[in-house]
Amino acid sequence: MTHGAWPTEGLSFGGDYNPEQWPREIWREDVALMREAGVNLVTLGVFSWGLVEIDDGRFDWEWFDEIVELLHENGIGIDLATPTAAPPSWLLAKHPELLPVDADGHRQAPGGRLGWCPSSPVFRRYAERIADALGERYGKHPAVRMWHVSNELGGGNGRCYCDESAAAFRSWLERKYGGLDELNAAWGTSFWGHRYTDFEQIMPPRGSTAAHSPALQLDFERFSSDELLEHFRAERSVLARHTDRPITTNLMVNTGDVVDYPRWARELPIVANDHYVIGADPHREQELAFADDRMRGIARDRGPWMMMEHSTSAVAWQPVNRAKAPRELLRNSLVHVARGADAAMFFQWRASAAGAEQFHSAMVPHAGRDSKVFREVVELGSALRRLAEVQGSTVERAKVAVLWDTEADWALRRGLKPRRSMSYSDEPRRWHRAFWRRNILVDVVPPWADLDAYDLVVVPTLFLVSDEDAARIAAAAERGATVVVGYLSGIVDPDDRVRLGGYPGAFRELLGVSSEEFFPLMTDEQVELDTGWRVREWSELLTTTDAEVVAGYANGPLSGSPAISRRHTGNGSAWYVSAGLEEDGVAALLDRLIEGTGVAPVLPAAEGVEVVRRVGDAASWLFVVNHGSEDEELTVTGHELLTDEPVDGRLVVPAGEVRVIRE
Amino acid sequence: MTHGAWPTEGLSFGGDYNPEQWPREIWREDVALMREAGVNLVTLGVFSWGLVEIDDGRFDWEWFDEIVELLHENGIGIDLATPTAAPPSWLLAKHPELLPVDADGHRQAPGGRLGWCPSSPVFRRYAERIADALGERYGKHPAVRMWHVSNELGGGNGRCYCDESAAAFRSWLERKYGGLDELNAAWGTSFWGHRYTDFEQIMPPRGSTAAHSPALQLDFERFSSDELLEHFRAERSVLARHTDRPITTNLMVNTGDVVDYPRWARELPIVANDHYVIGADPHREQELAFADDRMRGIARDRGPWMMMEHSTSAVAWQPVNRAKAPRELLRNSLVHVARGADAAMFFQWRASAAGAEQFHSAMVPHAGRDSKVFREVVELGSALRRLAEVQGSTVERAKVAVLWDTEADWALRRGLKPRRSMSYSDEPRRWHRAFWRRNILVDVVPPWADLDAYDLVVVPTLFLVSDEDAARIAAAAERGATVVVGYLSGIVDPDDRVRLGGYPGAFRELLGVSSEEFFPLMTDEQVELDTGWRVREWSELLTTTDAEVVAGYANGPLSGSPAISRRHTGNGSAWYVSAGLEEDGVAALLDRLIEGTGVAPVLPAAEGVEVVRRVGDAASWLFVVNHGSEDEELTVTGHELLTDEPVDGRLVVPAGEVRVIRE
Amino acid sequence: MTHGAWPTEGLSFGGDYNPEQWPREIWREDVALMREAGVNLVTLGVFSWGLVEIDDGRFDWEWFDEIVELLHENGIGIDLATPTAAPPSWLLAKHPELLPVDADGHRQAPGGRLGWCPSSPVFRRYAERIADALGERYGKHPAVRMWHVSNELGGGNGRCYCDESAAAFRSWLERKYGGLDELNAAWGTSFWGHRYTDFEQIMPPRGSTAAHSPALQLDFERFSSDELLEHFRAERSVLARHTDRPITTNLMVNTGDVVDYPRWARELPIVANDHYVIGADPHREQELAFADDRMRGIARDRGPWMMMEHSTSAVAWQPVNRAKAPRELLRNSLVHVARGADAAMFFQWRASAAGAEQFHSAMVPHAGRDSKVFREVVELGSALRRLAEVQGSTVERAKVAVLWDTEADWALRRGLKPRRSMSYSDEPRRWHRAFWRRNILVDVVPPWADLDAYDLVVVPTLFLVSDEDAARIAAAAERGATVVVGYLSGIVDPDDRVRLGGYPGAFRELLGVSSEEFFPLMTDEQVELDTGWRVREWSELLTTTDAEVVAGYANGPLSGSPAISRRHTGNGSAWYVSAGLEEDGVAALLDRLIEGTGVAPVLPAAEGVEVVRRVGDAASWLFVVNHGSEDEELTVTGHELLTDEPVDGRLVVPAGEVRVIRE
Repeated sequence: MTHGAWPTEGLSFGGDYNPEQWPREIWREDVALMREAGVNLVTLGVFSWGLVEIDDGRFDWEWFDEIVELLHENGIGIDLATPTAAPPSWLLAKHPELLPVDADGHRQAPGGRLGWCPSSPVFRRYAERIADALGERYGKHPAVRMWHVSNELGGGNGRCYCDESAAAFRSWLERKYGGLDELNAAWGTSFWGHRYTDFEQIMPPRGSTAAHSPALQLDFERFSSDELLEHFRAERSVLARHTDRPITTNLMVNTGDVVDYPRWARELPIVANDHYVIGADPHREQELAFADDRMRGIARDRGPWMMMEHSTSAVAWQPVNRAKAPRELLRNSLVHVARGADAAMFFQWRASAAGAEQFHSAMVPHAGRDSKVFREVVELGSALRRLAEVQGSTVERAKVAVLWDTEADWALRRGLKPRRSMSYSDEPRRWHRAFWRRNILVDVVPPWADLDAYDLVVVPTLFLVSDEDAARIAAAAERGATVVVGYLSGIVDPDDRVRLGGYPGAFRELLGVSSEEFFPLMTDEQVELDTGWRVREWSELLTTTDAEVVAGYANGPLSGSPAISRRHTGNGSAWYVSAGLEEDGVAALLDRLIEGTGVAPVLPAAEGVEVVRRVGDAASWLFVVNHGSEDEELTVTGHELLTDEPVDGRLVVPAGEVRVIRE
Repeated sequence: MTHGAWPTEGLSFGGDYNPEQWPREIWREDVALMREAGVNLVTLGVFSWGLVEIDDGRFDWEWFDEIVELLHENGIGIDLATPTAAPPSWLLAKHPELLPVDADGHRQAPGGRLGWCPSSPVFRRYAERIADALGERYGKHPAVRMWHVSNELGGGNGRCYCDESAAAFRSWLERKYGGLDELNAAWGTSFWGHRYTDFEQIMPPRGSTAAHSPALQLDFERFSSDELLEHFRAERSVLARHTDRPITTNLMVNTGDVVDYPRWARELPIVANDHYVIGADPHREQELAFADDRMRGIARDRGPWMMMEHSTSAVAWQPVNRAKAPRELLRNSLVHVARGADAAMFFQWRASAAGAEQFHSAMVPHAGRDSKVFREVVELGSALRRLAEVQGSTVERAKVAVLWDTEADWALRRGLKPRRSMSYSDEPRRWHRAFWRRNILVDVVPPWADLDAYDLVVVPTLFLVSDEDAARIAAAAERGATVVVGYLSGIVDPDDRVRLGGYPGAFRELLGVSSEEFFPLMTDEQVELDTGWRVREWSELLTTTDAEVVAGYANGPLSGSPAISRRHTGNGSAWYVSAGLEEDGVAALLDRLIEGTGVAPVLPAAEGVEVVRRVGDAASWLFVVNHGSEDEELTVTGHELLTDEPVDGRLVVPAGEVRVIRE
Repeated sequence: MTHGAWPTEGLSFGGDYNPEQWPREIWREDVALMREAGVNLVTLGVFSWGLVEIDDGRFDWEWFDEIVELLHENGIGIDLATPTAAPPSWLLAKHPELLPVDADGHRQAPGGRLGWCPSSPVFRRYAERIADALGERYGKHPAVRMWHVSNELGGGNGRCYCDESAAAFRSWLERKYGGLDELNAAWGTSFWGHRYTDFEQIMPPRGSTAAHSPALQLDFERFSSDELLEHFRAERSVLARHTDRPITTNLMVNTGDVVDYPRWARELPIVANDHYVIGADPHREQELAFADDRMRGIARDRGPWMMMEHSTSAVAWQPVNRAKAPRELLRNSLVHVARGADAAMFFQWRASAAGAEQFHSAMVPHAGRDSKVFREVVELGSALRRLAEVQGSTVERAKVAVLWDTEADWALRRGLKPRRSMSYSDEPRRWHRAFWRRNILVDVVPPWADLDAYDLVVVPTLFLVSDEDAARIAAAAERGATVVVGYLSGIVDPDDRVRLGGYPGAFRELLGVSSEEFFPLMTDEQVELDTGWRVREWSELLTTTDAEVVAGYANGPLSGSPAISRRHTGNGSAWYVSAGLEEDGVAALLDRLIEGTGVAPVLPAAEGVEVVRRVGDAASWLFVVNHGSEDEELTVTGHELLTDEPVDGRLVVPAGEVRVIRE
């Protein structure tokens, strides 16, 4: 589909709507409040399976028809979900064997969500049947604007270790490798003498504490992602018989991927995300931007994407569920729009009185209409209507790319590593933060992305990389870009085998360095560079073979050795950062990296003020978000859309507020 | 039974006696030492099952007869225990299916205690048989003064998730709800589409990490408590055929209830408690008082209760097993007597050489008779004899009630909550501590208690409350009492459904406030009120609808909003404390709460000196306990019972000592 | 065998060689590099089972023959390993029942190492067959210098709780106790009424959180050790049919024993150890010495032992895998030689590209020959050749013994204890450290060792002790030695029963004290002695009955009571240290203990400089190791072997370096 086929006029606004939790008299109030708030799209049906298919093959459509009509009459579009995230109790009782099994052999108990093994043929059959029934009944209904397959696939059933999964894993391996010789070679099964002589000998990496082969573990991650994607495709095929509306599913791109979202996204006409702020994250404002910049990086043609679920305030599943401060709801939602979301959808419309998520915030809170949250929801609805013209525009093209690869994350996360407490997202987020602090827009893209348009390419902890991707990165430098490779990049190939001859294997030549040995720093250990920058977590014994030394160690066991290097190559340069820099070091290094390049801020602004531009055919819009606690002033000219006032060059953005200027 | 039918003349003194661990020559020494110490009651038989029923239906009474006679001859009363806490090895080998199963499906291994599923009919049959055999043999024996069913029921088998338990749970649910429609409605099973269409679909909340329905979890707690109570009743029925002595069991009222002790207590002629000090508790002196004030609050008619087990010194099951300092044994035991215990019983008489509890302290330690512990045991025995006249008196009526409800504890403890690290006991204990520090006596009572006699009613984190109990609390304010409601009270109804329309649902009208949204504070986050009081852990976005603001936020996201409110209602007032006050704030607030009420200290005393009065028909006794490290002086007149000296108005209580004055 | 029959000329140098991971062209390079480095011994075959026995009973010897010949041609000796640590995939698929089961009933998944139940008769049969095949083929081969049974027995399969193990445990118990009466008496099963009436009722201590009988747990540890030793013996018997070379296995003596190494060592002609530095250990330099001093203490006749595996740099299995600083490789290896190792062997020769240990350092790192690590390996090889004459000499006889007993460790580690966070090794290592800091050599010996030669015997936390060993310790004092007993010694007998009458039971008479009660200190609690020494973790209520008080408590609940005592007995003295002294207290006490004894440093040296002497028939060698960061000077005369220079009385040892002087 093209971007023009967006499911709503203007930006989408609404959320998950679960009317089955409420008596019919509330439905009327719901629709009235939706209209008050300007809701134009709701996701319906996510948790309705057991209420619609009330027994095996027996359906009760009456109430569902009624709610569909009610929404339709009130002009509220429907994002219709197949309800397969939440199988009915009768199904789990009839087929307990479809409940997932964990690595230690415990079969999941009924009572949660997504309680099904992705490789279960029995479940697949039931899922296809309900999808077919829904498609048949509502496939042509004018209120249905798009389809939403299942919900947060992989959240709860991301990995299943049951015998059915084991068999499916073996088939997947046979398809991938062809024969055992190829598999034995790829995995290096000579180690510990594990060589397989029959596919039947291969098991999922059961036993959560065992030291499994890293290659086996990585393939199990890939397999698990593929099985879930296969499930998506199966439901999509069924629906496609009945509808020509876009069929998508909601990803959970945050930090740490359950499945391979960048690869999944290639199959989605509208890329949709569920995003929840982690209250304890000290950099949560930046994390919003980071997740959005990833979404844009994986969306088809970097076009608009959909914020399918976020929260009006606190969630229920964190250790401490931080509420959003007054005005934070509007601010955060508009950050997403600024960075390419053409939607602000929430989980959920009305806060549940009962059930596991009874304390999750909603658009209509327990306190009801007369509440901060609903007032801010109404205000957001109004703001989105004022911004309707932005829909379909694109975010101004970034000149900086930060690479992120889910397979590299998986490879780094599992198996015995030089340092085990590392999170894959730390370095990408640290780099992104330095750019974000200066209002320099970044695309967070997969390593196979087209890098032609970027002046600066940052490659943080790209632990696993293919020869092709490594060559493409090298070509970017050759072409004229500045490429910065971080430590623990290029270490293994796609078979999870170490690239021999010195680290960082795949990038050694590009960088003109060779690292002999990792010197991870102990918890609380710190060393310094001769630039004064502090180093934590990571150092390496580095030799420059064809590069100049930018910084070296001032103390510690590697005192005198190089830590950061630069090599001129073609029209560009390639930097290696072999040390775990703290934020101030990254920021200082950034200054030197962008010197003389075209990389520049969207607009100069004080720390904590975020500026992004969206560009349409006829106009462009500047989004200015003040995350701080003091009012800030910028120089801008245009028309402020939210307050409907002209801006004469001087724009004051009060603390905690957002301004959108048509330039 | 009436309080007069106490099992001993005067106060009871003794402990668990396990002669089966020792050869017969030690028995003679035991009885001689008991006489030396003044022991008048021992609990016999707790761990004797396998030694008496030596094989299925085959009994060896000889040694048991001998020990019963030996005690009888020496004038030592017997609290005869059915031995069902510790099933014989032959029984577990024959019926491994009666071992409990945990939430993750692991069947408990033999080798511990209480290794049986409370819903096992097989175990019930064996338990009834041994109880019957004991009752028949010793039911009329003059040495047997009372009966002790099993031991610490629920300690080790509090929750069982086996199939037998699952079936029993379903039957319990059918009895409770009548039909599935009622259950589906009460639990709100439309959430996640879990609606049940057959009772057979319902499972215990298996899978310890699953996000189960909170209502299901709460009912499973209630069911588990009921099953164990049912077991108690079954053994009691068997014994009642043979004896007219009181039949009770020992509770474990400390912090956090395994079963619903307040409800259980209503069935016990003598309410008995096992209480062990937590060495790492920084407020352990207050905790003694708190647990005792709970015991009194749940005892029938607030009459005397029995300290059935405490320890002479260290226990064995804590991470670090703190020993009691010199003189602490006497001091702690008399705290219990001061607060209504007519007994000081210990686990156990003689320290074991072998077995899991070999390092648990006892009345006769490993070192033997010539030891600090045994000397202090003898001194305690002597003190209890001097205090014999106190038996049967009651603790002076408190004017302050602090409410505690086990169901509220359970509801708060399980399921996804706004803040998960909270302990239910924190707030009740914090409030109690403020009163304890000023020698103001408090009853800790269940929410259904009669509140008529209280001038001040404190309602801390009463998360779950019924309409009836909420109305009774409101009536207390109407009548003239000061009612203080703490945050997270009145949130859910007995079905664990959120009371809609604004928090704190059940108390909103009484308090004249409405809270829209919870703002739990992150770990280490702190904000201040305009009174200067510090707030941690909890805040709320509060509006006063019909109340005056007592204190508001001085900073943080809620700056300027109210935090504490007061409403005058009828002859009394209702305060709401929506913020997590630190100790100093609670203490300062207490000053304002008792202003002008009849609430006052028993006697002014220095910090760390605890004063309680017991009142009998003919006299009253003042217990003064100095927990501090310096001597303290009070103004009292009467006769000091422990030292047999008159007190002329000036009483010096040395550091670490106790004084009891007949007034 | 005699010490003369060492498998190599001079000191052994090499490591685990796993050629199956590499193509044949690498083999040639391997052998060339081995020759360059001076490797004279490699351990072959550890992980080769699945590559040699390629299917049940089907063998592929070709490649193995080839590598054996290649090594032989190049004069490199072979330590030939039976490959039973790593069963082939086909075997685990065929017999999944031989995978171990953990205490909670989870059967280990295939994919790790040592995945077999030590009590499985099926596995034993397969293991014996492959051992027999290897023995038959290479038993007389001249390149094979010694045999290496399996690998790190117990690492991964130290405890198995399966039904097969349960049956074997029962047989072991029947053999040990003869009958149930004896077992019931020894274990004290009257506690909790657990008395067994049939061996079939006895289970391994399943259920990792259950409060099992400590005696049962201790016997299960002994049984598990014995089962693995039995496995060793079975393979050894098979090999002995084919070879007259020494047959040994590699222990893992570090801190905390999986099996009873001191008892195992009695069966080994060459005692061999695998030792890996714990990067986070703040005293890791001393730990090297400690482990070595234990090795020497358990080696037959305290003769040379073999460092079978250590690492050239980082390992892969720690949370942070610290690399060795430049020059640390040589320094650490020579510490082992100084303390009696006649070998410096590594895991492994060439770093793996794939498999679970791909990031474990090796002699040839991923970076290859041109690397710090390989250069230091070559330097080490050269150093070892210069030190060839040292082979066969013994370490100068120590005058101080520190006792260590694996059974005491086990008994302290399991079951409910007065303080649960204690590590058995803490006190032995603290004492050892005080001696190490002053260059006083210590033997760490089992309690049954001959104590005749020692002037000072330290007995730290010897929780369990037999009457015989206690008597031998007392006899040492009688004879004239100074004996120091630490707290928690002599508490239980070999049946794990508390020795009654006062602590420290078995040593009460020797020490002339009686301790009534343990007063473990809470975490972060600290008290002081009247000597000013700080006490943490442990105190006791001590009475001296026939001893003088050396130090008493200055504050805390035991203020005024004795803490350290001394009793003169026969020609010696017996000290009791009942308090948990910090390092400074131990050091100060050490001064007083060695006053007037013959105990003295090998040589006075600055802190951080370690000096040890090895003594041969014709010469002696002084090893001086400077662990510090500054150059140090000592007064020594002789010939420096590593630099081939005479030493004229003034020896400068640069920071981080080692010097070896022929005196």
